[in-house]
Amino acid sequence: MNLVLLFAEDFISPSEVCLTGRRRDHMLAVHNIQPQQSLCVGLANATAQTPLTTPLTTPLTTPLTTPLTIGTGLVTAITQNTIVLHIELTHRPPAPLPINLIMALPRPKMFKRVLQTITAMGVKRVCLINSYRVEKSYWQSPVLSATTMKEHCILGLEQAKDTLLPTITLHPRFKPFVEDELPAIAHNTQALVAHPGAATACPRHLSGAVTLAVGPEGGFIDYEVDKLRDTGFQPVHLGERILRVETAIPALLARLF
Amino acid sequence: MNLVLLFAEDFISPSEVCLTGRRRDHMLAVHNIQPQQSLCVGLANATAQTPLTTPLTTPLTTPLTTPLTIGTGLVTAITQNTIVLHIELTHRPPAPLPINLIMALPRPKMFKRVLQTITAMGVKRVCLINSYRVEKSYWQSPVLSATTMKEHCILGLEQAKDTLLPTITLHPRFKPFVEDELPAIAHNTQALVAHPGAATACPRHLSGAVTLAVGPEGGFIDYEVDKLRDTGFQPVHLGERILRVETAIPALLARLF
Repeated sequence: MNLVLLFAEDFISPSEVCLTGRRRDHMLAVHNIQPQQSLCVGLANATAQTPLTTPLTTPLTTPLTTPLTIGTGLVTAITQNTIVLHIELTHRPPAPLPINLIMALPRPKMFKRVLQTITAMGVKRVCLINSYRVEKSYWQSPVLSATTMKEHCILGLEQAKDTLLPTITLHPRFKPFVEDELPAIAHNTQALVAHPGAATACPRHLSGAVTLAVGPEGGFIDYEVDKLRDTGFQPVHLGERILRVETAIPALLARLF
Repeated sequence: MNLVLLFAEDFISPSEVCLTGRRRDHMLAVHNIQPQQSLCVGLANATAQTPLTTPLTTPLTTPLTTPLTIGTGLVTAITQNTIVLHIELTHRPPAPLPINLIMALPRPKMFKRVLQTITAMGVKRVCLINSYRVEKSYWQSPVLSATTMKEHCILGLEQAKDTLLPTITLHPRFKPFVEDELPAIAHNTQALVAHPGAATACPRHLSGAVTLAVGPEGGFIDYEVDKLRDTGFQPVHLGERILRVETAIPALLARLF
């Protein structure tokens, strides 16, 4: 972890946190941290998460109104089970990507990695949707519990030195989501659906907000692409090669912004 | 697999192959293939691999001189252990990416995935190098056997519907490689080293050949970046966020080409 992510419940005084468990163990085992040493810390977003229909902010640099959530933690005590850090927050987190990511639910094992990847890359709004080629059992996976998803998002934020957890919503029925909810989410954004074999190449280096739909392994079926097209989504491709979802997503994000 | 990759030793007549093992099992279990059905096949490159100092070809579409290596396999027989396919090759493989990828050896488990990813994305020339932050034990990993690396490259080609296996070379000593071998490899290419915190942003949508160096988790140390810079490599960044190697590589490739 390049940053130790802190939460409100870690604080024992306004400028002191007491950490146990994974974070403590990692600081000792990997960073070999000693008293009076300091390391990079960040305070996770404490405020309520924004609804997905709130307009996306498009500046690619962090606005000056963003709170200072990143800084240093100075080790003041190490006990058998805890580490106490004195905290000073002096920097703003990196700007979020201006994107709504609409993603067919991946296979659970891959989903964990994808969640870390997209969080590390700055995606803040994720809708997990059903699709013909999503196996029904995936929706029963314990990975979809709020706790487990949050754990993987935390790993992504700690990797990328960010502090704002993404909002993730589940939509196990394709048609009602696309017809009734997606139009408001995609409103005022460039709406794209990644689809191998599409006539148009995926655009590059956009500055505005994007809503991007990504299908499952094997892709969306024609009916689904047609539904998305009816909702204003343009099918775009990344070239002749068919990529796995976990490769296609970082490739798409890097190309779009 | 979106394509069944064939090798010279699979042929039982000029236009017939007999497949056993993984490929047969996958065709039956996943594709539920029946006699008289056909699926996409490709013939792996049989010729000797090109030395890394051969100039990279830069066209981003496949030249018309490239042999036809992709086509259909019609199932003519299924026995208890084999599948026999009648082969017709009618298409050329997708164009390679014009890149030499110089990569600090990743952790073995991640390396397997990275190898599949870069092969799927069209990388054909890979140099695995040492770096201060590469654990020495990684060089002893069985993943580095030619057989295991080839297995993972095959999975990448089957995913992306490609037929040309990459050339992969191992360079367990950083300084002699960078001083003595790298200049000839990077000759006439745009030489870049991905380095978080670099002053210049990674360029986008290049049409010429690139030599790209990517460090280990934690990055190259200053000495190594200086050595690469002395050899003509420009340090470039992908933004404020620090990405894992397996995320940074598809992001870099998607942005460069």
